[in-house]
Amino acid sequence: MAGGEAMTTGKLHIVGVGPGDPELLTLKAARLIESADVTAYPETENGRRRARDIVADHLGRAHQIERPFRLPMASDLAPAQAAYDRASALIAADLDAGRNVVLLCEGDPFLYGSAIHVHARLAGRYDVAVVPGVTSVTACAAEIGLALASRMDVFSIIPATLDGGALEDRLAACDAAAIIKVGRHFEKIAGILKRNGLADRAMLIAAPADDAPRALPLSELNGTLPPYFSTILVSRKGAPLQ
Amino acid sequence: MAGGEAMTTGKLHIVGVGPGDPELLTLKAARLIESADVTAYPETENGRRRARDIVADHLGRAHQIERPFRLPMASDLAPAQAAYDRASALIAADLDAGRNVVLLCEGDPFLYGSAIHVHARLAGRYDVAVVPGVTSVTACAAEIGLALASRMDVFSIIPATLDGGALEDRLAACDAAAIIKVGRHFEKIAGILKRNGLADRAMLIAAPADDAPRALPLSELNGTLPPYFSTILVSRKGAPLQ
Repeated sequence: MAGGEAMTTGKLHIVGVGPGDPELLTLKAARLIESADVTAYPETENGRRRARDIVADHLGRAHQIERPFRLPMASDLAPAQAAYDRASALIAADLDAGRNVVLLCEGDPFLYGSAIHVHARLAGRYDVAVVPGVTSVTACAAEIGLALASRMDVFSIIPATLDGGALEDRLAACDAAAIIKVGRHFEKIAGILKRNGLADRAMLIAAPADDAPRALPLSELNGTLPPYFSTILVSRKGAPLQ
Repeated sequence: MAGGEAMTTGKLHIVGVGPGDPELLTLKAARLIESADVTAYPETENGRRRARDIVADHLGRAHQIERPFRLPMASDLAPAQAAYDRASALIAADLDAGRNVVLLCEGDPFLYGSAIHVHARLAGRYDVAVVPGVTSVTACAAEIGLALASRMDVFSIIPATLDGGALEDRLAACDAAAIIKVGRHFEKIAGILKRNGLADRAMLIAAPADDAPRALPLSELNGTLPPYFSTILVSRKGAPLQ
């Protein structure tokens, strides 16, 4: 660009890449990733890049820049906030330099996505658009053939990290639910489901974002804990699941 | 096939085609539609074929059969059940003849999709798989830039058809909600949101499945009713929406 000419800032697309199966990417996500100047994505402390893995087939053109950024898995707020600050600054630098950026986000960006925190930092200052993606919740339901909600049913997504009382109240207020991030909260949830006569109407899907998600009746866990990213689907309607 | 040889029945894929934007189709849905022997889809009494319209670019190969079936818009259960019986019989005939069938479903098949009723009729008798799709709920959120849920938030999908008391209770039990199928229930919902201090934390997205969804603060409706397929998103967190 000629010196003195005003630089146009780039556009940021925050793109949901779906629950894990590379084929559950949308056509729009594929097009945006293939045409972006920069692809940004989170990386865990042990080097895992799930969102990038999902879209690997659409990366790798010459001149395309990749910008991994570290996100701590720790649930402490302070280090996470500092990491979102750093990721946002990294992306802002590319936008300021006139480069279009795609930020990859597993599932849908606005349902429990860490991209929410980058969106909050950049949406007021830059041209930002969000592209929805398939959520792991409906992918889990498809996997086990469970209709989540129809007609007048209320469907809720409930984090397993809630305390037992709150979780039980929220569960009582819906017809079907996805309890997400089960991990070490499994025993607490299994107890609540049992007490409410829902144990045989629930199914655990272990690590739905992995290549081989596994569906298990709760009774088959036998004291072992499922992975952190596990989901329990429960429905009051229809036939028992197990 | 030679006479006397056993006929293999076809496989049914129930495929979510997303909320309306043809680019929000998944790569998997596109592949399955392009390779199916038969594509089945609902048609309203006035000839509207929304699901087919979304995937039109992927249809039209020679030898590909299309099977529209009528679904009444009426909320009466009896005619709907008869229509699902007929649609299921139509699809079963193709499967029996060894043809692979894709059944198109707007949004995600297992979230308020009419395909749930076809799934219930055929899943026990045939090889049936469900392919998740982008839901209109997260597409609406992306449209207005609203983060639906993060960390410990509970997110609920609540049909506007619930009676006022139940709707208010369900709303009290979550941090954010999508109230779906608003239409003629608008005044009831607007009253509930106002009474609970949520009117300025809600936004209506009219006809999200159409080509041009419109986001409107509730105060701008001025006594007119939004279309049946309208969604109100409401969140207790973050800045007011209007």
